[in-house]
Amino acid sequence: MRKRNLETCFSPALYESEKHQGSIVVVIDILRATSAICTAFENGAASIIPVAGIDEAREYKKEGYLVAAERDGFVLDFADFGNSPFNFTPERVKGKTIVYSTTNGTGIIDLASAAGKIVIGSFLNITALTEWILSRENDVVLFCAGWKNRFNLEDTLCAGAMAERLLNSNHFSTICDSTLAALDLWSLAKNDLPDYIEKVAQRTRLRDKGLDDCIGFCLTFDFTEKIPEIKDGILVNNIL
Amino acid sequence: MRKRNLETCFSPALYESEKHQGSIVVVIDILRATSAICTAFENGAASIIPVAGIDEAREYKKEGYLVAAERDGFVLDFADFGNSPFNFTPERVKGKTIVYSTTNGTGIIDLASAAGKIVIGSFLNITALTEWILSRENDVVLFCAGWKNRFNLEDTLCAGAMAERLLNSNHFSTICDSTLAALDLWSLAKNDLPDYIEKVAQRTRLRDKGLDDCIGFCLTFDFTEKIPEIKDGILVNNIL
Repeated sequence: MRKRNLETCFSPALYESEKHQGSIVVVIDILRATSAICTAFENGAASIIPVAGIDEAREYKKEGYLVAAERDGFVLDFADFGNSPFNFTPERVKGKTIVYSTTNGTGIIDLASAAGKIVIGSFLNITALTEWILSRENDVVLFCAGWKNRFNLEDTLCAGAMAERLLNSNHFSTICDSTLAALDLWSLAKNDLPDYIEKVAQRTRLRDKGLDDCIGFCLTFDFTEKIPEIKDGILVNNIL
Repeated sequence: MRKRNLETCFSPALYESEKHQGSIVVVIDILRATSAICTAFENGAASIIPVAGIDEAREYKKEGYLVAAERDGFVLDFADFGNSPFNFTPERVKGKTIVYSTTNGTGIIDLASAAGKIVIGSFLNITALTEWILSRENDVVLFCAGWKNRFNLEDTLCAGAMAERLLNSNHFSTICDSTLAALDLWSLAKNDLPDYIEKVAQRTRLRDKGLDDCIGFCLTFDFTEKIPEIKDGILVNNIL
């Protein structure tokens, strides 16, 4: 039986759209966008409209939408709140459609639009996500959002954790050096992930802005079984 | 005292030219371009003219130059030889100017042209290179050539080995996740580098083409003390 192909992409600047038509693309931006999205759906959000531009987010706000928007970790003045998963409480989001614009996450969805399916991944939904992937037949790309097109460690570690599960299933193979690197980095980090994360650049950036309170939460396994999916440009939770 | 900044770039697609004006850029493409260039200078080459295009290389051949040129590991029909370090023997290269066109390496030199200095790095010259860097004052970028803009492990490992020496000197600091990842991958590989390299994609590509005879050599430390440098678009060996 042909094994399914597993690849990892470390940055939007490295994504090869034409290679991945028909693949499942897992978007990973754990500090903090994809952790926040998983939290929003666990807490009852109906859907999330990702928008790339600030002006577009502002227009939605004028129309009465709940808007989560930030740049470089700072909440935009017109927005209801920013990018921390702790903002997406049941009281705020249950049954709601949220408009969401972030530094990294939103543009990626456009890049990946030729894929067979785009889903949102984080440690918070890793078991549900990898088990769902194993129930399908597509090739898979683990698409790390990085930071301003740069490689980052925290998304790479999450990709490594997912790759370990998928490759252990024996249904996948890889000849992708990025996947091999992610696996090896994960092997170094997994026995004390919070300690390893102390050194990553985004840890420092968030601390400098007083935004690091959610990091421990973002490293929690299996907070939710939700698997957010992009459908017609909107994030929904109907994959299962 | 201000510590010098150390960064690592995993692919030409991730290189930020405007950030690195004035820095020393170390180009790393160990399988096989930068290993071959180090070998050529150790064996007495006078200079190397890097050219990006096949037509340009062919024109030089017509003018009587010695031409090393390949694409995807295969020697071009008009060229004297290809990309293996074993081709650059003293008998062939001593005192000669060589025209050199490769899959990855040549375009990178254009990308890095705003840097303060561009030098060629590999395991073959790692001690001479890192000691020379420590004698200077510039910030440093370890620029991995990758493969067709993709991340690769072998250049990352070489960057990790260089980063270890530079950071251990206490003259450098880094807040670059790529450097931290390279260091950690190097820590996993360094006790048995040939064994680790067995799994990388380029290892497989070279073996499939019967071009893997030089891999052991490319993992040799300190075959030479030469530090090839780009000057006015030409590779020369006058840095010391």
